[in-house]
Amino acid sequence: MKFIKDVKILIVGLGLMGGSYADGLTSLGYEVGAVTRKQSTIDFALNKGIISHGMTEPDGDYIGRFDIIVFALYPHVFMDWIRENQRYIKKGALLTDVTGVKGSVVYNVQELLRDDLEFIAAHPMAGKEKNGVRYASRDIFRGANYIVTPTPKNTPGAIESCKELGRLLGFKNIMELSPQEHDEMIGFLSQLTHCIAVSLMVCKDSKHLVEYTGDSFRDFTRIASINDEMWSELFLLNKKELLKQMDLFADRFGKLRGFIENDDTEGMREMMRLSTERRSYFSTDKD
Amino acid sequence: MKFIKDVKILIVGLGLMGGSYADGLTSLGYEVGAVTRKQSTIDFALNKGIISHGMTEPDGDYIGRFDIIVFALYPHVFMDWIRENQRYIKKGALLTDVTGVKGSVVYNVQELLRDDLEFIAAHPMAGKEKNGVRYASRDIFRGANYIVTPTPKNTPGAIESCKELGRLLGFKNIMELSPQEHDEMIGFLSQLTHCIAVSLMVCKDSKHLVEYTGDSFRDFTRIASINDEMWSELFLLNKKELLKQMDLFADRFGKLRGFIENDDTEGMREMMRLSTERRSYFSTDKD
Repeated sequence: MKFIKDVKILIVGLGLMGGSYADGLTSLGYEVGAVTRKQSTIDFALNKGIISHGMTEPDGDYIGRFDIIVFALYPHVFMDWIRENQRYIKKGALLTDVTGVKGSVVYNVQELLRDDLEFIAAHPMAGKEKNGVRYASRDIFRGANYIVTPTPKNTPGAIESCKELGRLLGFKNIMELSPQEHDEMIGFLSQLTHCIAVSLMVCKDSKHLVEYTGDSFRDFTRIASINDEMWSELFLLNKKELLKQMDLFADRFGKLRGFIENDDTEGMREMMRLSTERRSYFSTDKD
Repeated sequence: MKFIKDVKILIVGLGLMGGSYADGLTSLGYEVGAVTRKQSTIDFALNKGIISHGMTEPDGDYIGRFDIIVFALYPHVFMDWIRENQRYIKKGALLTDVTGVKGSVVYNVQELLRDDLEFIAAHPMAGKEKNGVRYASRDIFRGANYIVTPTPKNTPGAIESCKELGRLLGFKNIMELSPQEHDEMIGFLSQLTHCIAVSLMVCKDSKHLVEYTGDSFRDFTRIASINDEMWSELFLLNKKELLKQMDLFADRFGKLRGFIENDDTEGMREMMRLSTERRSYFSTDKD
């Protein structure tokens, strides 16, 4: 599968991420179609010029026209969709996705897929604290990471095409991880931090705290504004790994609590020096 | 005590905060002196034009010249300084501070102070993840909060002068809280979040994670870069309140962990909806 100009691309699920893929690919001159639930979404996307056409129901003739299909659906909907509609997909088509967890998705999809189709999973690490096609824009990919998570079932050609898709969309770093490595990394860097922010934000009815709140608390809790439907599903799909990361954090937090309770200044300071050193790897201009 | 132009102001401790006070007050035309440990600090500040003069040792004649003294010292140094040098302070002078905890400081200072002096505590909620006079600038006060924490020992005039000082320095919000209210608020909004960030940052040797790290993890861990000497002291001085806030957070974090472990989607989603609602009070343009 090469990215020649007459390749036709279908986006299934036209939300923030699917819509941003559509925006990026249309702007590059590709013919982009969409299958999504609401007519109003299609109307908006047509009007904005980020798709060429779209349908609200999976239609066999329509689906059969595409060479590449990008799934930007909730994981459980994704599996059902494949089960019900894969019979319509053009022989040799390449399937990819944007799902935020991999181990519990990739193998299952590859398992149930027709032999003449290939699914290569990817995770575009981009987003906003807003949902829906109305906020879609290819700009969200700028400076962001794009991770391809192949399995032994994937061909070198499909892996390369999937990376090329990330490059075309303007991602800064295109990387490759195993599904397990991906899920551990995401469990720590993303899911755990969301768990912490949510837990912190529900501690108090914080209305009266607003006037005392500085930038650091705001930065810290930005991700406590969260799409509950999507994240609860992603948490459960990465449950084993996420619980491991939560326990790791709780252990360190408990250690620090112990230092404070026991007036162990040196224990505290050593931990703070380690955190300062490790944070320095991430330094940016904003620091 | 009015802020007439010929009032002389002494800064004790010329670090980031003391230096920023000096910068702000000098730029307003006040005569600002400094007592600080290192001659190189004084030389730097003189050269930058943010003080008129300074000394490395508390000198009786020098200290006796000032009408207002701002203490920008580590809490334990602050108490010792008062004990040893209050005999030099001009009768009727107004003393204030910038200390980040209040309950364990304010009453003790007021207790040991001469009867003809008044100490009115304040917490300028501004800063940087950098220390030292080299980073000092009155710009750090712009948009920040300034909290005055009077006790029954304080006079209305001193409270008003202390607020006026905050206004002169350019703080956005000038507020009044009791020392206890202040410490609870700071324990939650600032100290707890620093504890969380530090605990998270020491979980893993994260060098290999840098390339996968997006803006949200960076925002989240910015405060894990921390002055271990100062913060360990502040934590212990607010120990009771901080442990209470840590336990509150650990309870909510444990609840969320339980929801995930037990596949309790509705429990998770309810918590996420509450966190989203509460975060919305803090919304800014950056969200």
